[in-house]
Amino acid sequence: MLTPALVIQKKRDGHELSAEEIRGFISGMQTGEVADYQATAFLMAVYFRGMTLDETVALTKAMLESGERYDFSRIPGPKVDKHSTGGVGDKVSLVLAPLAAACGLKVPMMSGRGLGHTGGTLDKLESIPGFNVRMEREKIDEILRHVGCAMLGQSDKMVPADKKLYALRDVTGTVECIQLIVASILSKKLAEGTDALVLDVKSGNGAFMKSRSEARKLARMLTQVAKKSGLKCRAILTDMNQPLGCTAGNALEVVECIEVLTNHKILGNGDLSSGDLKELTVQLCAHMLELGGIAKNLAEGRVTAHSRLSDGSAWAKFQEMVFAQGGSLDAVNNTALLPSAPRKLPWKAKRRGYVTGINTESLGHLLVELGGGRKKISDAIDPGVGLVFHRKLGSQVKTGDTVVTVHAAENADQTAIFAALEKAFEFSRSRKRVPKLVIESMG
Amino acid sequence: MLTPALVIQKKRDGHELSAEEIRGFISGMQTGEVADYQATAFLMAVYFRGMTLDETVALTKAMLESGERYDFSRIPGPKVDKHSTGGVGDKVSLVLAPLAAACGLKVPMMSGRGLGHTGGTLDKLESIPGFNVRMEREKIDEILRHVGCAMLGQSDKMVPADKKLYALRDVTGTVECIQLIVASILSKKLAEGTDALVLDVKSGNGAFMKSRSEARKLARMLTQVAKKSGLKCRAILTDMNQPLGCTAGNALEVVECIEVLTNHKILGNGDLSSGDLKELTVQLCAHMLELGGIAKNLAEGRVTAHSRLSDGSAWAKFQEMVFAQGGSLDAVNNTALLPSAPRKLPWKAKRRGYVTGINTESLGHLLVELGGGRKKISDAIDPGVGLVFHRKLGSQVKTGDTVVTVHAAENADQTAIFAALEKAFEFSRSRKRVPKLVIESMG
Repeated sequence: MLTPALVIQKKRDGHELSAEEIRGFISGMQTGEVADYQATAFLMAVYFRGMTLDETVALTKAMLESGERYDFSRIPGPKVDKHSTGGVGDKVSLVLAPLAAACGLKVPMMSGRGLGHTGGTLDKLESIPGFNVRMEREKIDEILRHVGCAMLGQSDKMVPADKKLYALRDVTGTVECIQLIVASILSKKLAEGTDALVLDVKSGNGAFMKSRSEARKLARMLTQVAKKSGLKCRAILTDMNQPLGCTAGNALEVVECIEVLTNHKILGNGDLSSGDLKELTVQLCAHMLELGGIAKNLAEGRVTAHSRLSDGSAWAKFQEMVFAQGGSLDAVNNTALLPSAPRKLPWKAKRRGYVTGINTESLGHLLVELGGGRKKISDAIDPGVGLVFHRKLGSQVKTGDTVVTVHAAENADQTAIFAALEKAFEFSRSRKRVPKLVIESMG
Repeated sequence: MLTPALVIQKKRDGHELSAEEIRGFISGMQTGEVADYQATAFLMAVYFRGMTLDETVALTKAMLESGERYDFSRIPGPKVDKHSTGGVGDKVSLVLAPLAAACGLKVPMMSGRGLGHTGGTLDKLESIPGFNVRMEREKIDEILRHVGCAMLGQSDKMVPADKKLYALRDVTGTVECIQLIVASILSKKLAEGTDALVLDVKSGNGAFMKSRSEARKLARMLTQVAKKSGLKCRAILTDMNQPLGCTAGNALEVVECIEVLTNHKILGNGDLSSGDLKELTVQLCAHMLELGGIAKNLAEGRVTAHSRLSDGSAWAKFQEMVFAQGGSLDAVNNTALLPSAPRKLPWKAKRRGYVTGINTESLGHLLVELGGGRKKISDAIDPGVGLVFHRKLGSQVKTGDTVVTVHAAENADQTAIFAALEKAFEFSRSRKRVPKLVIESMG
């Protein structure tokens, strides 16, 4: 067995590591045989040399084996989850989990918190008073059995190697490494013990992967490694050159999801619809249904998903889930009871034209500045603040039209906020082509 | 000022760091603002991206500033030192320091211990009973003033950043990085406070740099960084495809040096001379004399060095230094009093021919196996063991001629030792060209 130093050297020199060498290194990190300062040198060598498919599979497995795993085999029905690489306004999970459950899948959905410019599903859910994302295994089993979907935070005992590696990567310039990203995502998803996984890999100016080719590479690697790890998997590549739907901000996004689930307008942002959010949710649900064996093909899956959304079953499941997880049914039935911001600042167009560009990442950062996101993992967030969009890419605007309503705290600096919006939005005389939402699917 | 993580990222992405960024990172390592796991990620990024000349100068300076420096400006006369990148049988310093002092230079020579396949000057000196390589500053000043040369270990307070970095590099696969090697060597040499430095950069199968082009690159960078750091510097490139001189082993090397200094054969290894050791010492001394302004040019330096060696002045200086540093004059005057090994094992040629190849590094490792070197820095060494060569590259051998006499401990495994020698030596029917000792000089 190679010493940690020799494993590092082997990777540094561009040789392929054996599964045993990778397992030894990762388990050594847990036992202390591999020091943190060796782990980070290894990570940087991986950054430069990359990893083969087999190495990435082995790393994923080694990380998975570092902690506890769920086992839902006792629960009847296909267990399928979805993972998104994250973006601005991406609230799909909140609609998708109950929708997929309404279609007959079991969805134990493990989500994260917002960090940097992207939001986190757990933060959104917690804007519903009482909603609890940490539950005992028995309770999760019970909810899955009786409701069909549960939305949870990862337990501390799951994939501790990922927590450790991520904390080290974050401060050593080794976050942006595709194989490490793949192993991090999939080790956590494998630990959930589902049968299949649908991935929403986003590309564009609001995504981690700015270019389509990078995103495609990530999607391909994710599906390959997932399959080699025994998980049915499909990835769809979607556009993130504008926020998804018409809100960004925790409680506001919950409201938008309720709009989609109930087919009832609440936000009052004019004629801008949540059509993109709905379309993406249905598309992801159709893939989940096909992978889970409930639909014969994608078309059938779409039909089922559409009907469960429009007939109110998904909305019923959502309420059941909220209730089962301790959330306030009153608040989801009367969204005025959800947290809200004291000030609503309408940002208006100065001249007529079309919206032709949105710097989506900067809107994510603006949300952080408003208090709706985190710079550090320990930051508290303000669930009420956020942005409501009245216009998005391709929209026509007249002078004086409200483009965005900013929901802000009492002490918010309107000038700075509007300046940020001014920089984020691009207007032109003529309309430009709007990027297609779903680019392709693979796997 | 960039955070440590951003400094790492900047280097990772191939951008040039400012002197301030490098200084901040290195001083942060001392204060704890930069964690060890960040330092090693940085080192690996440097391994892959390299450093510019300016960055290497800044790193050297930052390391130098991490600790105490000697200041010999009160002592009259040019202060000049030599540094060798290390090899097998490289005992030059023991002859060179007193020789250069005998020629009028002040030589505060800071040396190291053997590690891996190369020997260390301090270990060799300590085979002289009583010889003390750790002295107070006042004592060092006194010896330099009155004797002219002192041979010392580095104090713990000098260049602590190098100690820390080296310990981290050693276990993270980042030893073999030319800019880090340069900064490590020169920060220590600059801390000595000499005016000039002559470098002996070795290449060949017994050196750290196996290829001549690597060694040339290292020599060039060392001289460039030294000069930019305000140190007069010259490098000579020398061959290390066979041991230097005719011994390898601590006390045996001291004996060989005494042979050269006294011009009197003691070892009894036939007609094999220490001509190469003598030639290299004279050559290095000539460069030191020229740099130190004592000789007008190299030729004049050679003449001076030769005459101080043959007239006994260097031998007298050696004895003065041994006495001043607490070593036994009896032992250097009667080498039978030096440590010696109980068994002498002659390894003989099995057929006639010529020595055409010596795997020098493997001889270094054999010496470690005999007990004369270290695998770990904490290992104790046996000063008496070693190898005496009767034949080297180009030597003719007849069947039954002794090629090497192994000086071994009582429990040594003769079969294993001879098997190692069998593998290390190559014999052929016809003579091959012997590599030139001094390849070129630069700077």
